Formats: sequence, C-alpha cells, structure tokens
Amino acid sequence: MTDRTRIRRLPEKAVDDVAVLHAVLDASRVAHVGFVDEDGHPVVVPTGAARSGDRLLLHGSTGSRMYRRLAEGVEVCVTLTLLDGMVLARSAFESSMHYRSAMVFGVATPVPEDEKVAALRAMSEAWLPGRWDTLRPPTAKELAATMVLALPLVEWSVKVSDGPPDDAPEDLDAPVWAGVLPIVTSYGDPVPAPDLRGTPNPWRPPVRA
Amino acid sequence: MTDRTRIRRLPEKAVDDVAVLHAVLDASRVAHVGFVDEDGHPVVVPTGAARSGDRLLLHGSTGSRMYRRLAEGVEVCVTLTLLDGMVLARSAFESSMHYRSAMVFGVATPVPEDEKVAALRAMSEAWLPGRWDTLRPPTAKELAATMVLALPLVEWSVKVSDGPPDDAPEDLDAPVWAGVLPIVTSYGDPVPAPDLRGTPNPWRPPVRA
Repeated sequence: MTDRTRIRRLPEKAVDDVAVLHAVLDASRVAHVGFVDEDGHPVVVPTGAARSGDRLLLHGSTGSRMYRRLAEGVEVCVTLTLLDGMVLARSAFESSMHYRSAMVFGVATPVPEDEKVAALRAMSEAWLPGRWDTLRPPTAKELAATMVLALPLVEWSVKVSDGPPDDAPEDLDAPVWAGVLPIVTSYGDPVPAPDLRGTPNPWRPPVRA
Repeated sequence: MTDRTRIRRLPEKAVDDVAVLHAVLDASRVAHVGFVDEDGHPVVVPTGAARSGDRLLLHGSTGSRMYRRLAEGVEVCVTLTLLDGMVLARSAFESSMHYRSAMVFGVATPVPEDEKVAALRAMSEAWLPGRWDTLRPPTAKELAATMVLALPLVEWSVKVSDGPPDDAPEDLDAPVWAGVLPIVTSYGDPVPAPDLRGTPNPWRPPVRA
C-alpha cells in the first residue's frame, strides 16, 4: 500500500483483497482513464477495459490522442466503478449509494505485437464470452490500427459500499421506508443489424450484462 | 468549443447539442472526477453528481481529500459515461459499445452556505424524485460536514455511439449474427433496512433506475 492507495475517507469501506479487485474489474467493461495532458490539465476518458491475469488491458485506436499520450509512458489513474444500488436512509445525510470501485495507478505500456491478438481475444472473451471464436481473425491492417495497453495491477485500491442504511438512533422512528433499492444491469432484446443476412438466430448473450 | 473539447477521434460521434449534454448528465448518478494531486499525479475519483440548470453539482464530505483539493480551485475534468449496449459486428475490429459520454472541464466552486440546502435537494430529486420531502431537513451539523461544489457547464463535449455495426462489405456474409445487445439498467426488489419499524410499504422507486 502506498500513500495514495491508502483509503482515508470511509476507511471501513476499503478492501484489501485482490480477489475483490479482480471481481470488480471482471464485472466492469468501461474504465475511466485519468492522465495529465501536455499542458498540465487533467483529462478523464472512458475506454473499454478488461482484466487478464494481473494486468488491466485497455485498447483503442492508434489514432487516439489518449492512446498516443499513454504510450508515451505518462502516469495514469484508471478508475472503474459499478453502481449497485441506492441507499435510502431516514435522513438525506445518511442516504448514499451502493458501489464497488477500483483505482489502479501506474504506467500502461503497449502490449508487444506478438501478444496483441491474445490480448484482444482476452478482452473480447471478458466482454462477450465465446464470441471471438465465431469471428474471422483480425487482419494485419486492423492490428496495426489498434493499440493495446497493459497496466499492471500493482498499485491499487478498492472500495465497496454494500451495507444497509446507517441511521442515527433518533431517526429510526421516522415515518419513512428505509432500505436499499438495488440497481440491476441486464441485456435487453437483441437488435439485429439492418444488413443482417441469413443468420436469423441472435447470438446467445452471455449471462452477465 | 476549445481545443480540448474538439473531438478528433470518431468526430462523427461528437454531439454539439446542449440538450444531449443535459440528457446524459440527467441519466447519470456517478461522475468520475479527474484532477492533478499535490505531487502532479492524476487522480480519478467517483462521486455522486447531478445537474441543476447549467451547473453540475457534486457533493461529498468536507473531510474528503478530493473535496478539499477541489475546493482549493484546482482544475477538473469530470466525465460521466453511460454504457448502453454491446455492438456485435462480424469482425472483432468493428465490434464496439453503445455509450453516451460527457466531459466537463473547469473549476468546481463551493456552493454558498445559504444555497446548500437547495443544491442538496436538487441532487436528491435528480436521483430519487419525491424522496427529499419525506425526510427531515438536514441539521446544521450535517450541512457543515457536507461540501457541495458546482461546476459550470461551459467547457464540455459529448460523444454518443448508438449506431448499428458498421461492417466492411466483404464481411457481410460471415455466418454470424450481428447487431446490438442493449444494456438495460433497472431497479431490483427493494431490500428493507434490518431496523425498519412500522413502515412496511417500500418507498415507491422512481421509474428511472
């Protein structure tokens, strides 16, 4: 643990377990990548992210400003947050949200060319298990246009809020319902591509949305 | 539009309409706030956020490192992203995600004491319409422990990805389903607080999760 991964605010929500870190990353698809731009300004960009072993993989276009900046070796803070529910306490002050959030600090480095396909496959499998093998392999041109970065899971913190409302004793008799409204994410009905030909059965979505 | 709000990557997905900005912010509950810490490192922290008119409101504890840093007047990049679906193209390269994402740059300034209750009410109403008026008003002590910051919606950009897969003509006959798997967010069954007394009917959740 470093100074910046020590959680000071609501430290009781800090989680030290790498299995929880992995679970948060594995349940996420989008990461918010923070870095400092050439002029010293903070920038936060959402991007697809998936864990592979002890690395967080990010991928984007080689034409992207962010990916070019990251490939220069600038430091990043990558934060992934899942909103799991609304906590309705008897007071506004104690009302809050259920969430799981991971922050990873470090430098994301380009995955070597000969590992790129495996890394892209790992990301695809994390998001849509089984889909990759039904698709043609990427072309050399496609691979050249894609940057894959790996951020080692070394300096990180995780915070989980999943408890019931924590009202003050004097509020417990307030005539309001208190509890948690879970927020659930799921797949809606598949929408076929307008130019779909000859494959009427939608791809079976994985269980996890 | 400033240099940093001009979208260069996939500019066709850039949206210039303030109504779309507002819609993205209104559909979000969590913002990722990026700033540069005292040592020059980027930091990205999730926090509750809601729009009120032409400002984005953020609130947190006066004890929070981030809120103290922000109150010093450091620049922020606040990014809010909604993941709306998975785009399944015939190739991995063209596969992508549906999303709506807003970035707001600027300095977030503390809301004056005499406007704090109205700002907190606006946030509560954005998240749980109708709930605020069922709760007791905040105490002076609670207000003193809460910092509310307002970020003007002046320098911003919005990007929306909502189209069908865009496959190359030579891929259209690939024997795979192509289309979009929408990602839907909803409320699950309310979970009463273990110490709930005498108010058996769950608070009626608003339609939007």
